[in-house]
Amino acid sequence: MNEFELIARLTQNLPANESVVAGAGDDCAVLDLGAADKLILFKTDAVVEGIHFTKETPPEKIGRKALARCLSDVAAMAGTPTAALVTAALPENFDPAFVEKISTGINALAEKSGVAIVGGETTTNPERILISVALIGTVPRGKQILRSGAKIGDAIFVTGELGGSIAGKHLDFEPRLEEARWLAEHFPVHAMIDLSDGLAGDLRHILKASGVGAEILKPALPVSRSAKLASKQLAGTLAPPKPAALAALTDGEDFELLFTVASKSAVKLLDAWKPNFPKLKLSCIGKIVTGDGMVIRDKHGAHPFNAQGYAHFAALENLTMTRQP
Amino acid sequence: MNEFELIARLTQNLPANESVVAGAGDDCAVLDLGAADKLILFKTDAVVEGIHFTKETPPEKIGRKALARCLSDVAAMAGTPTAALVTAALPENFDPAFVEKISTGINALAEKSGVAIVGGETTTNPERILISVALIGTVPRGKQILRSGAKIGDAIFVTGELGGSIAGKHLDFEPRLEEARWLAEHFPVHAMIDLSDGLAGDLRHILKASGVGAEILKPALPVSRSAKLASKQLAGTLAPPKPAALAALTDGEDFELLFTVASKSAVKLLDAWKPNFPKLKLSCIGKIVTGDGMVIRDKHGAHPFNAQGYAHFAALENLTMTRQP
Repeated sequence: MNEFELIARLTQNLPANESVVAGAGDDCAVLDLGAADKLILFKTDAVVEGIHFTKETPPEKIGRKALARCLSDVAAMAGTPTAALVTAALPENFDPAFVEKISTGINALAEKSGVAIVGGETTTNPERILISVALIGTVPRGKQILRSGAKIGDAIFVTGELGGSIAGKHLDFEPRLEEARWLAEHFPVHAMIDLSDGLAGDLRHILKASGVGAEILKPALPVSRSAKLASKQLAGTLAPPKPAALAALTDGEDFELLFTVASKSAVKLLDAWKPNFPKLKLSCIGKIVTGDGMVIRDKHGAHPFNAQGYAHFAALENLTMTRQP
Repeated sequence: MNEFELIARLTQNLPANESVVAGAGDDCAVLDLGAADKLILFKTDAVVEGIHFTKETPPEKIGRKALARCLSDVAAMAGTPTAALVTAALPENFDPAFVEKISTGINALAEKSGVAIVGGETTTNPERILISVALIGTVPRGKQILRSGAKIGDAIFVTGELGGSIAGKHLDFEPRLEEARWLAEHFPVHAMIDLSDGLAGDLRHILKASGVGAEILKPALPVSRSAKLASKQLAGTLAPPKPAALAALTDGEDFELLFTVASKSAVKLLDAWKPNFPKLKLSCIGKIVTGDGMVIRDKHGAHPFNAQGYAHFAALENLTMTRQP
């Protein structure tokens, strides 16, 4: 059983109450706790040694990443983060200086993001460090952006560049808080998610929640320099080079925003974006269509792309590469 | 460096903002998120295989305990729990049925307590299961009970019976939510904490936060049957039997309420308690005094009791036992 199958089983028939606006299945839970103009966002996320970072990762970056992942989820709801609790599960022989530097990394990003660190706990995890962050945020009442609002005909946008995050961005990414709030304030954003599992996987979450399909234009994918470099690595290494567009579609931990907007607003959005966020690329990469899956369109036509489609796509990529100059 | 020294270092100069009513250092953080009549409580707590439960613990009880620990902290603020997120960090080869039963245990207690489970995450922890619960609750604005309000002359009360929780209660305890809200509504409760580290340790948190001392009456300690049984175990086992009163003072995971009330309300409280909670003992165990530590009074006088005082107290216990019938 994989993670998604387990989650599907665990999230059936969960206890609910009148506070729940949106429960399991979105970037954050959304709660109504009685503030006249605000709803509460609630999120938790953990990083584990050997999985999300290594023994060699600078401790400040471990802390930064632990908080930044939660902030990215608050951004995906167009919210503002408020306060966090930090759980540090540590081996018995932990190095206090190392743990303090993790804390320094968390606190520096918290300060920058206006987040209060209001406690947490330390506990024992004998074999490895695990840092879990629980985050509360707020969103103006009725302005939360869910995964479930994508409409047929919507233009699909993504911020930044995709793929190859493992080369460094997974530790240094900027949660797109300001950009997301600006989007929600100025444009009819129908659905939004942050990219943690990779574009193809996260787009699928939007499609499933919204009951729609998507057509992605391959040449429009904003492929990162890291993904391009990795695709050109010399043969003879353990893993074969991953085609750059495939990396942009399937590499995890981009932590960019993926969202849909009514197509009539697409050009206006692109025009308004540039002066507001001159350093961050915004790409229109396709559109929402009827159906329930994702297809990739290139000059040779439209090709289904699904979770079992990596091999298929790799073949397609090689095909198109041999035909391109 | 022990846990408390680490926490002291990690909680210095934490980032704050205008939402924070009470940050690190109480049972829950308290936040003002704009609801006219309510403040928000925020807590996280983890249980780890081999530390808080064993491979033999029934999985439903693991889940129950994970949530109940957080509920007990909300009780200690006189709050009402609202919604929780669950982090399940699992070995790669996890047994889905076992994990589902953990979830069943969480959900059953959540239903009973009116708590919505609004998501969470699964992640990998290769060597052992770790379940972390993040909980949001509410408390009527201004009615939160902190650790820092104990006043000289206050009577010190504790619910239930103490010690020997390891025999079973640590998995089955009832968070004292209803009792705590009743107390806060009807009596001027000055300070409250839930007993997780043991009476002596947790009382010390109140004393430190309030800048006061305490005198505990040894004969008034409500010693549990489990603690009494354990104190009578036959010699020859690995650990020597622990005197029952020492167990009541130092065993962890009682999850009862420890609180202080103006002494003039003490008798009225004891009278009012009985008809409202006939099945739960309430004991007045001592009083708040000037100073900064804790003394134990028995018929031989008052004896300092501090973190380094186990051996001293054991000697005292033996002394008094030889003099008693």
